[in-house]
Amino acid sequence: MNGNRFGRLFQVTTYGESHGRAMGCVVSGCPAGLPLSAEDVQRDLDRRKPGQSMITTSRGEPDEVTINSGLQDGYTTGTPIGMTIQNKDARSGKYEPFITAPRPSHGDFTYSAKFGTRNWGGGGRSSARETVNWVAAGAIAKKILASQGVQIKAHVNQIGDVKAREVTFEEMLEHTEENEVRCADPEAAEEMRALTERYQQEGDSIGGSIYFEVHGLPRGLGAPRFDSVEARLGQAMMAVPASTAFEFGLGRRAREYGGYDRNDEWEFGEDGDPVPVSNDHGGIQGGITTGLPVYGEVTLHAPTSIPKTQTTVDWETGEEKEVQVIGRHDPVLPPRGVPVVEAMLALTFVDFMLLAGRVNPDRLDGDVGEYDTDYHPSQPEH
Amino acid sequence: MNGNRFGRLFQVTTYGESHGRAMGCVVSGCPAGLPLSAEDVQRDLDRRKPGQSMITTSRGEPDEVTINSGLQDGYTTGTPIGMTIQNKDARSGKYEPFITAPRPSHGDFTYSAKFGTRNWGGGGRSSARETVNWVAAGAIAKKILASQGVQIKAHVNQIGDVKAREVTFEEMLEHTEENEVRCADPEAAEEMRALTERYQQEGDSIGGSIYFEVHGLPRGLGAPRFDSVEARLGQAMMAVPASTAFEFGLGRRAREYGGYDRNDEWEFGEDGDPVPVSNDHGGIQGGITTGLPVYGEVTLHAPTSIPKTQTTVDWETGEEKEVQVIGRHDPVLPPRGVPVVEAMLALTFVDFMLLAGRVNPDRLDGDVGEYDTDYHPSQPEH
Amino acid sequence: MNGNRFGRLFQVTTYGESHGRAMGCVVSGCPAGLPLSAEDVQRDLDRRKPGQSMITTSRGEPDEVTINSGLQDGYTTGTPIGMTIQNKDARSGKYEPFITAPRPSHGDFTYSAKFGTRNWGGGGRSSARETVNWVAAGAIAKKILASQGVQIKAHVNQIGDVKAREVTFEEMLEHTEENEVRCADPEAAEEMRALTERYQQEGDSIGGSIYFEVHGLPRGLGAPRFDSVEARLGQAMMAVPASTAFEFGLGRRAREYGGYDRNDEWEFGEDGDPVPVSNDHGGIQGGITTGLPVYGEVTLHAPTSIPKTQTTVDWETGEEKEVQVIGRHDPVLPPRGVPVVEAMLALTFVDFMLLAGRVNPDRLDGDVGEYDTDYHPSQPEH
Amino acid sequence: MNGNRFGRLFQVTTYGESHGRAMGCVVSGCPAGLPLSAEDVQRDLDRRKPGQSMITTSRGEPDEVTINSGLQDGYTTGTPIGMTIQNKDARSGKYEPFITAPRPSHGDFTYSAKFGTRNWGGGGRSSARETVNWVAAGAIAKKILASQGVQIKAHVNQIGDVKAREVTFEEMLEHTEENEVRCADPEAAEEMRALTERYQQEGDSIGGSIYFEVHGLPRGLGAPRFDSVEARLGQAMMAVPASTAFEFGLGRRAREYGGYDRNDEWEFGEDGDPVPVSNDHGGIQGGITTGLPVYGEVTLHAPTSIPKTQTTVDWETGEEKEVQVIGRHDPVLPPRGVPVVEAMLALTFVDFMLLAGRVNPDRLDGDVGEYDTDYHPSQPEH
Repeated sequence: MNGNRFGRLFQVTTYGESHGRAMGCVVSGCPAGLPLSAEDVQRDLDRRKPGQSMITTSRGEPDEVTINSGLQDGYTTGTPIGMTIQNKDARSGKYEPFITAPRPSHGDFTYSAKFGTRNWGGGGRSSARETVNWVAAGAIAKKILASQGVQIKAHVNQIGDVKAREVTFEEMLEHTEENEVRCADPEAAEEMRALTERYQQEGDSIGGSIYFEVHGLPRGLGAPRFDSVEARLGQAMMAVPASTAFEFGLGRRAREYGGYDRNDEWEFGEDGDPVPVSNDHGGIQGGITTGLPVYGEVTLHAPTSIPKTQTTVDWETGEEKEVQVIGRHDPVLPPRGVPVVEAMLALTFVDFMLLAGRVNPDRLDGDVGEYDTDYHPSQPEH
Repeated sequence: MNGNRFGRLFQVTTYGESHGRAMGCVVSGCPAGLPLSAEDVQRDLDRRKPGQSMITTSRGEPDEVTINSGLQDGYTTGTPIGMTIQNKDARSGKYEPFITAPRPSHGDFTYSAKFGTRNWGGGGRSSARETVNWVAAGAIAKKILASQGVQIKAHVNQIGDVKAREVTFEEMLEHTEENEVRCADPEAAEEMRALTERYQQEGDSIGGSIYFEVHGLPRGLGAPRFDSVEARLGQAMMAVPASTAFEFGLGRRAREYGGYDRNDEWEFGEDGDPVPVSNDHGGIQGGITTGLPVYGEVTLHAPTSIPKTQTTVDWETGEEKEVQVIGRHDPVLPPRGVPVVEAMLALTFVDFMLLAGRVNPDRLDGDVGEYDTDYHPSQPEH
Repeated sequence: MNGNRFGRLFQVTTYGESHGRAMGCVVSGCPAGLPLSAEDVQRDLDRRKPGQSMITTSRGEPDEVTINSGLQDGYTTGTPIGMTIQNKDARSGKYEPFITAPRPSHGDFTYSAKFGTRNWGGGGRSSARETVNWVAAGAIAKKILASQGVQIKAHVNQIGDVKAREVTFEEMLEHTEENEVRCADPEAAEEMRALTERYQQEGDSIGGSIYFEVHGLPRGLGAPRFDSVEARLGQAMMAVPASTAFEFGLGRRAREYGGYDRNDEWEFGEDGDPVPVSNDHGGIQGGITTGLPVYGEVTLHAPTSIPKTQTTVDWETGEEKEVQVIGRHDPVLPPRGVPVVEAMLALTFVDFMLLAGRVNPDRLDGDVGEYDTDYHPSQPEH
Repeated sequence: MNGNRFGRLFQVTTYGESHGRAMGCVVSGCPAGLPLSAEDVQRDLDRRKPGQSMITTSRGEPDEVTINSGLQDGYTTGTPIGMTIQNKDARSGKYEPFITAPRPSHGDFTYSAKFGTRNWGGGGRSSARETVNWVAAGAIAKKILASQGVQIKAHVNQIGDVKAREVTFEEMLEHTEENEVRCADPEAAEEMRALTERYQQEGDSIGGSIYFEVHGLPRGLGAPRFDSVEARLGQAMMAVPASTAFEFGLGRRAREYGGYDRNDEWEFGEDGDPVPVSNDHGGIQGGITTGLPVYGEVTLHAPTSIPKTQTTVDWETGEEKEVQVIGRHDPVLPPRGVPVVEAMLALTFVDFMLLAGRVNPDRLDGDVGEYDTDYHPSQPEH
């Protein structure tokens, strides 16, 4: 209803505005017995946090998480986990020009239209700062999934017209975090960085996309119809700030495929069970997982906050106005979006795992299982 | 949880398998005072029903709806509306070969993996026959929306590599239902039909896509974050059977746009309120409607049931098998998918309207308002 | 939201008015593999149905259930189960006097106040006829519970000032269905019957109460706080038509107990695990089951539809009016309320069992386990 | 699912253990435009907080609330309100004896049975300390209700065998907070205090009950069946720690009333609309409010933590054990339970008001309306 809750058995409920006192969330439904510390959460927060490089905002948020509840002696207790992240570097003053003069393609006008008011500092509730909560909750979800042998990885596969080559899951695991763009193809990463800087220098920004794979999912996960894996992913991925497209499997290209070409025939797998010979179906059939990796893609439009001069109107004064959104804004979203997409994937799949009774409590504390990285699903063409 | 419920205030709960006794649904949260008859619902069911043309399945389902409750003297009472649609033309026998030998890219294996059993006749619960419920509920939602001046229209904009030209909303309203493909561009429609028949003759099927526009939405609809308009649409559109991609606004193309190009500047509208000068944002900013039309696109993969010989395995006998899925199957999904997409749009938006307190009960019985069909949003390039 | 849905994993969604075309419900979340036939459901419907004796309404409803979906070869498939029960003996004419002149303490006025309209025949949506849906869904829930060794039984323990003596669970199982009052104490039953007839002869009605026990529940069922067993029971039992009080354990008498007297000390049970030495706690501590029987009591006020002359007002004519609610109305509710209370208990506990992962699918088809009927919890004093 | 969420449109999600770092909650769905400060919340927290008198625990918790989000310039923005309350005075050491030896009738055993672990300091998640969150959220709900003319008041009407005389709503408003027992009958209050001290001196505790009235509710609030006002109240009131009985209207006494005696006839009210001549129905008919006050009663059993020697078993050592629960525990719950009951009433009714579209945003900032305190509903006999 209110847009701040995600999940069914594993639920996260969030609050916070960009320039409020603190961000925070409650994670409900986390199983008991998971080893958990603030450091586990901090690791992913650090990947999302501002100021990591030249092509991310220089806003100086330490993003330190405090876990307020739900733990005993370093293990989860099965009761709600409350977390808070203080807001430190808030300079609301520079947003005053926009209180009644909406920035182009920002949420300023729509929030005011809906609520009759809004927290206007730094974008308020519409700020992507909210995703700090998602990443915090997602870090817990990821840890559960890892203990069960499920692994999630995303990387930036396109910025502007620069496309990464097709990479393996192993390459994604190995190379994504090696560069500031978070692209597993180092050459493309360098081009993407250069392209982004050109836009930045012109006072502009640029769009891009994120490709993801989820390995190790058991077959039989999901539900028919409205709660199919792809429907739940549709909500999760379109909730990512600036998302304008979600695709899985062949995605948009599927419209040009014949059934015979797209259909994946069956063979017997090593364990004697049926397994598809290929993965054009993207790991999902009839809304339910086949056991092959789930993969897909999310498009994020260019950041709307740009220094270039644009026109707006002031609904108080009734006047047209030139605006320049000067500040510490990201010139491109996917690099910091990678941990956000991973978090939403983790929240979606841990929920499906719990609903299916597939989270083995005895493994929560064990060594993380090995991942099957041999299989390489077909990826969308670039 | 169970995949058969959609919506929050306006909820539909469904049941039924392809070859079971009856399909049915419960519509909860419909406001009191809406004039409603079985005919209102039947009209959309007839658009979805099989046997409409050569390029749709010839299965002989009359799809007659019975309204069991929720009415008094031809008006809704605000209490739940129960509807049933009997299944008539069920020939389960021909599905016997597939009980333990899953059809390629169908839900046979995954349903059995999840439930340990399944209703195997005609695809059972995974059959697209389920959408008869969505269309029935959607017809009620549409009627409410129409009374409030909101209008929804979809048409087929691509089949295989045949693309419709860009059309206006008026053209969509006028021409979509004129041909069996439900494409508002008559020339393209003819090419699409011919292409589909070629695939059909080869025992194959083909994918395609549906473009939609929603006009007349008030500004301020939606919610931040997880319940943003695009997130809810993401779930709704990815729940449509065979959907592999959802896009709104610039969609997938947004990754190649700079912020300055994509951003929509503000001007004053006729009523003195701010209005964007263009609609690259697809009617949604910060997850909330701007008052401009919401538009987008859904890709549906080719039907998986094809007569062409394919390979599968039988998990009972442990043997490989050749299969031919012979029967009365659609060779292409978008033509019959148009009313399904419209229904899911209606269900999504009537829910948002109710949550925002924007359904005026005094208008429920009035003449339908005029639609603003002047505005033509930019459409994705084909 | 709309009052027609109950449960979380095991959900029932209902529709129907007393004099509409049909009642119906959708049961979502029933596990696959349960043997189920219409007869299983019919058995409990027959216990609820009108016309069973002199002290129940003579309305002639056969209440025959049709199962529309969710079955394959006599077993549930895990997909939604749709059921319908036709309404046959509807004589709406006699309700016309009350369309705008509300019957005392009935829902006529409040429904019209809320919805601005209502289905006025036979009480419409506010009619206790709705409970036919609850009993149908509850029959499925009971069957699951029985397969897991959980047994539910209720009986009428008071009508007017006639109180049943304290009875054992075995007596409840054996004697409840032997008399038309559904009281396990045969002498009290006879007095209750006589008392009810006296009220009936005077054109009046009388209140009463139902006592219940649930045996065989595993320990650890429930959740902290808002979803505690007693909170969920509170909703379930107060939803029963005419319910004005719910108590569990010592109930209302607990206010007069000291902690030392009420507290139940711990000993080791036969299996070496801790078990309370007594059950003043009613089977629930901290919102979670202890493994001892859950027991409690529900008070149902006297039926509001009585032939005795009462005063009302007509909001159309603006006049005072004498009314006599003549028809085939129950003079007392608990006898037919027993299967309704049992159904709501079953719906509540099957949901808790599923949430706790305590429904063993391998037992669904097995022989029903033996019940521990040795233990007799303390019961409220009468 | 997880027991930490209440409400539908106005939702509170909570976390925290007695001896954890902090308690906290998220309030979602609060309308924009409500003037709100930490002081508004603190006022009710102070009424609930420990150490208020000799007959409440002396635990030294300042219970200072911090509002982290959801405000702009002293007004709510419609976005989630996050609040935290630090835990200060936690002395977990003294709970060590009970880690594996459950205190009688406490949640120790059941939490461990459910989760396999628990936060054992101070009762952990099962501690009534959790209600600090409810009171904080309820303070916001109360403020909204007050702005709309709805007023809630509760007082202690019985402790042990000491019963308050029947009091008017005005007396409740005036006298409840004048004594440490929170009983609006000063003579009874003094007796209750003395009785409680006697139990306390003997190392024991005592039960009691709380009576409440809600005035100013519009008619037409609520929903049929599972979401009836009494069903929702049933959940809310039975969730209150130590609650064993909930009654509304005539409550448990209704079982002894005939229909003619209990039914409330109709007359025309001052505004020309129908109004019941009496209120034995407790303000609710058919699950929906009539416009007369809603009133009822909640029984709270005696605190389970008592110094008197009791027997338990240690599931680690396998030995029987004598235990004395020495600490700063309340000897009686209703005095501190009054603000908790009020909070849960407020949360329940603000949700119903929002669902019915009955919260007028223009009044949120206005002077609080006058209350109709003339009407005095019949109260349960003591």
